[in-house]
Amino acid sequence: MNRFELISLIRRKQSFLCIGLDPDPEKIPPHLLGKKDPILEFNKAIIDATIDLAVAYKPNFAFYECLGVKGWQSLVQTIAYINSTYPGEVFTIADAKRGDIGNTSKQYARAVFDRTSSGMDFDAVTVAPYMGADSVKPFLEYEDKWVILLALTSNKGSDDFQMMTSKETEFRFFEEVLIKSLRWGTESNMMYVVGATKAEKLEQIRQLVPDHFLLVPGVGAQGGSLEEVARYGLNKQCGLLVNSSRGIIYASNGKDFAEKAREEGKKLQETMERFL
Amino acid sequence: MNRFELISLIRRKQSFLCIGLDPDPEKIPPHLLGKKDPILEFNKAIIDATIDLAVAYKPNFAFYECLGVKGWQSLVQTIAYINSTYPGEVFTIADAKRGDIGNTSKQYARAVFDRTSSGMDFDAVTVAPYMGADSVKPFLEYEDKWVILLALTSNKGSDDFQMMTSKETEFRFFEEVLIKSLRWGTESNMMYVVGATKAEKLEQIRQLVPDHFLLVPGVGAQGGSLEEVARYGLNKQCGLLVNSSRGIIYASNGKDFAEKAREEGKKLQETMERFL
Repeated sequence: MNRFELISLIRRKQSFLCIGLDPDPEKIPPHLLGKKDPILEFNKAIIDATIDLAVAYKPNFAFYECLGVKGWQSLVQTIAYINSTYPGEVFTIADAKRGDIGNTSKQYARAVFDRTSSGMDFDAVTVAPYMGADSVKPFLEYEDKWVILLALTSNKGSDDFQMMTSKETEFRFFEEVLIKSLRWGTESNMMYVVGATKAEKLEQIRQLVPDHFLLVPGVGAQGGSLEEVARYGLNKQCGLLVNSSRGIIYASNGKDFAEKAREEGKKLQETMERFL
Repeated sequence: MNRFELISLIRRKQSFLCIGLDPDPEKIPPHLLGKKDPILEFNKAIIDATIDLAVAYKPNFAFYECLGVKGWQSLVQTIAYINSTYPGEVFTIADAKRGDIGNTSKQYARAVFDRTSSGMDFDAVTVAPYMGADSVKPFLEYEDKWVILLALTSNKGSDDFQMMTSKETEFRFFEEVLIKSLRWGTESNMMYVVGATKAEKLEQIRQLVPDHFLLVPGVGAQGGSLEEVARYGLNKQCGLLVNSSRGIIYASNGKDFAEKAREEGKKLQETMERFL
């Protein structure tokens, strides 16, 4: 999906909501556990109930890999379901936080972008920047596909390294990631992860990357505020994808889980509509 | 596998060789391609031919994930083959470069360490440090399992961020990773990745982490020198695992590939024996 299509989706749905499909086996509604693929059934129900509210879905790979081959089957089936049932109607993000030497990142890119190789065909992938340019560039070689680079993450540990100041440039490490990566991609194939728990930093970040989309996790369970994120993060073309996972998908673990997920999603979408 | 057992293996085999099981579909010997699972057959033949020479095997997950579910099946079968055929005879490393917020890293840890959940039971996993302490610690909660944290990688892009100097401490970023992570684990559950192409840095690194094991990729195809790595990196209990992938596993792509892999592995092991 290209930038124009993504922005059109946001306008049409009046939403910049991304829903994290992180099916923790311990939290899935018990009545689904007897199904052949409980995770796939769970995801399909969440997707069907929220497709008009969400502009993006973001499965985090960890929640599938912990179940081994069976989990990967659910993951592949989930992205296939989205792409076949709702083609062009939603942006898809492989939240995998990959990154390796160039020859290896090339294989990771095939895993998430090349359906003929892996069975999966996401629009975007999250990438960790630690290994530098050649670990990121192979993901940028696919047309209309996106890299979402970790910049300032939502967790406590983000202080450990991301906030370090560079002696050479006086920039923080996460700012160095923003600045250097501007040479690798454009606002049409690169986004950045900025945690909602660091909303006060969004103003500075917008000075460095005024036009790029930011993927903002951490609203809800992690304590970030949607209002603050919108105030400091929105740009002329929206420029935000705000993710909520647990707050939506585990709103209930009864038979009404999809309905309750829709209610929580709807609240967020309506708030977003006010900001757009 | 604990530290004592690893050191015993190194003494017994007179080797600190790690073989990277990175089965690039384009380089696998053609005569295997008709098999039901060519990658598994390839890996099994390499393992059988080198088990007395290698103290560790390291599948890089990218080379499996690019094939989707089928690739994950080969990966799970490969680690199962090692653990059932050669129990206690070799150290196994999930080269996955994972790392996410705590709740998510916990799931990644299950993926690589908890056989009852994922079918996989590696001794160690490579982890990217960008997200800090809480992204790493969930992997350290398993007894006799190891985190191998990226410090100074072998690729060109390692200069982009890892070599930045901290204004606060005057340490390089990769040194900050070494220093801070000393509070998270011990030399009995944590190792570091240091590329062989940066052998001249090993002397400094040894001052910060004199007792830890270092996993050193980049010998062979990437141009690193085993002699230099050994000179600057060895400590009293060896403290090194030196990885070679392409130089060994693709020594031939004919029917003699396993035999040729053994020859290349043997050369490295004999050189290592001289250093021990």
